[in-house]
Amino acid sequence: MGIGPEITVKALRDKRVQRACTPIVIGEPYSLEKAGFTDDLAALIPIDMPGKLAGKPRPTAWGGRVSFQAVETGLKLALKTGCPLVTAPINKQSWHLAGIPFTGHTELLRARTGAEGLMMFVAGQVRCALVTEHFAVADLPRLLAKARVQKSALHFIAALQNLGIKNPRVGVCALNPHAGDNGQFGKEENKVLAPAVRALQKQGFQVDGPVPTDAAWLMHIRGQYDGLLCMYHDQALLGLKLAAKEPAVHITAGLPFLRVSPTHGTAFDIASKNKADASSMAAAVMFATSNKPISIPPLAPLHPNP
Amino acid sequence: MGIGPEITVKALRDKRVQRACTPIVIGEPYSLEKAGFTDDLAALIPIDMPGKLAGKPRPTAWGGRVSFQAVETGLKLALKTGCPLVTAPINKQSWHLAGIPFTGHTELLRARTGAEGLMMFVAGQVRCALVTEHFAVADLPRLLAKARVQKSALHFIAALQNLGIKNPRVGVCALNPHAGDNGQFGKEENKVLAPAVRALQKQGFQVDGPVPTDAAWLMHIRGQYDGLLCMYHDQALLGLKLAAKEPAVHITAGLPFLRVSPTHGTAFDIASKNKADASSMAAAVMFATSNKPISIPPLAPLHPNP
Repeated sequence: MGIGPEITVKALRDKRVQRACTPIVIGEPYSLEKAGFTDDLAALIPIDMPGKLAGKPRPTAWGGRVSFQAVETGLKLALKTGCPLVTAPINKQSWHLAGIPFTGHTELLRARTGAEGLMMFVAGQVRCALVTEHFAVADLPRLLAKARVQKSALHFIAALQNLGIKNPRVGVCALNPHAGDNGQFGKEENKVLAPAVRALQKQGFQVDGPVPTDAAWLMHIRGQYDGLLCMYHDQALLGLKLAAKEPAVHITAGLPFLRVSPTHGTAFDIASKNKADASSMAAAVMFATSNKPISIPPLAPLHPNP
Repeated sequence: MGIGPEITVKALRDKRVQRACTPIVIGEPYSLEKAGFTDDLAALIPIDMPGKLAGKPRPTAWGGRVSFQAVETGLKLALKTGCPLVTAPINKQSWHLAGIPFTGHTELLRARTGAEGLMMFVAGQVRCALVTEHFAVADLPRLLAKARVQKSALHFIAALQNLGIKNPRVGVCALNPHAGDNGQFGKEENKVLAPAVRALQKQGFQVDGPVPTDAAWLMHIRGQYDGLLCMYHDQALLGLKLAAKEPAVHITAGLPFLRVSPTHGTAFDIASKNKADASSMAAAVMFATSNKPISIPPLAPLHPNP
């Protein structure tokens, strides 16, 4: 078991969390108790599984089964009630060892809800979304198609509108250095990104780009964009982690319920040592209690300008 | 003409610059005078060319000829005297219009000195170098070879040693998200980067990695690395621009003289409006006056640990 139980208990002890919601915790009772969980902190739906906790924190099939069952239970509850779902980190290798046919939360959520989902990060005024997620850099040129960029942008705009930004200004990051310098270093800007941006602008959206990565992030920080649409994982995560002034949360937009999670992993190296920082988990719960589900309408124009 | 003359004059008026050196300015006299240049600021080597300044700041063949001649003159002077060379930005399109067979400073410097050169950026304690420079993302997997990464790392280590860091700790950034997650998203970490890092460690260097991009930059900012070796342009420039707490300078390490420049371009949009920020130019001059040439020894082990 990683730091999940510890950050859950720490977040539940947070006064702001206590004031904001009546949480239900879904998890393995022994690990939670070891981390200091008591009944007065939250209602508990226990996940009991044959097997036992590994002595040293490490990926195990048992850990995979327990965490998978907890997420499945939470997912069903969220689908039935519409309550927001906050997930603690899971270990992908544990799920693999347990023979679970999903690489992680997002794939499971997609399979169970039939929704596409958009990976998004929010840290105060810093907001970004990913057109591609966990892919090799070598695959990016093949993956970045105009339709995919357009669809992601529309989903992102809808998500930002759900966060209360009526007509969001979205910056679209370039793939190549200097945005390709007019085709000198890469064709994707001219062939894919610029046409996608023009199509979105024609629909009346405030979309700008493709903007060179470094300039786009500086403009976002200065408030010139409400959010950045990033083409690949590190373009989003590097910018987010350096620009964020407060704990970041990870959101899967477009599900029938609001799903939020902290932005870190299970951190086996510091598990059971009372060293874990629960600020991202607490921020995830606070975000979940203070926002509507981020619904994503179908691909038709959303709220174009007159 | 871009903001070059303006930031040159502003930097020359900077009291710290005046105390630090006796500068020689090489440039087109009329543009410099228009920007406020006077003889008491510096000795001037005038570059006169038939033709005239464009009314509206924009790329022109004349601008290309003038700026190329200025850089050529500075280069010859630096080669002869060993004095540091600070270059103002040039416009690549102007050089192209003038029929100059070099895309920019770095290519010209390489051709004239026969040295390979390593693109490096420094902003206080933030330091990074680039294994690949102006290339399309699609070309990265092909370009990243073990020998190239190793050589860049050795050059970077030598450059950091020239900056006074005896046994620099260098973080090597991964190419793929989560450093490929053990080959799941990309093979370059296992096949290229990890072997290069192991070879460098065997030589006694404090080299670590491949580290996922976002983690590597956070570790660098926290002081765990003296410098980051970045695999591609935006990995370096996005990190640098968000992490820098003071003006950044661009260095070409490995030339027979120290070459420094500001980190921005000619900015035609704000040229001749007295709006340009000269802090990067002033920082470049200050860096040039306070550091030795960053020489790069051949590829043999440099200063391995005992």
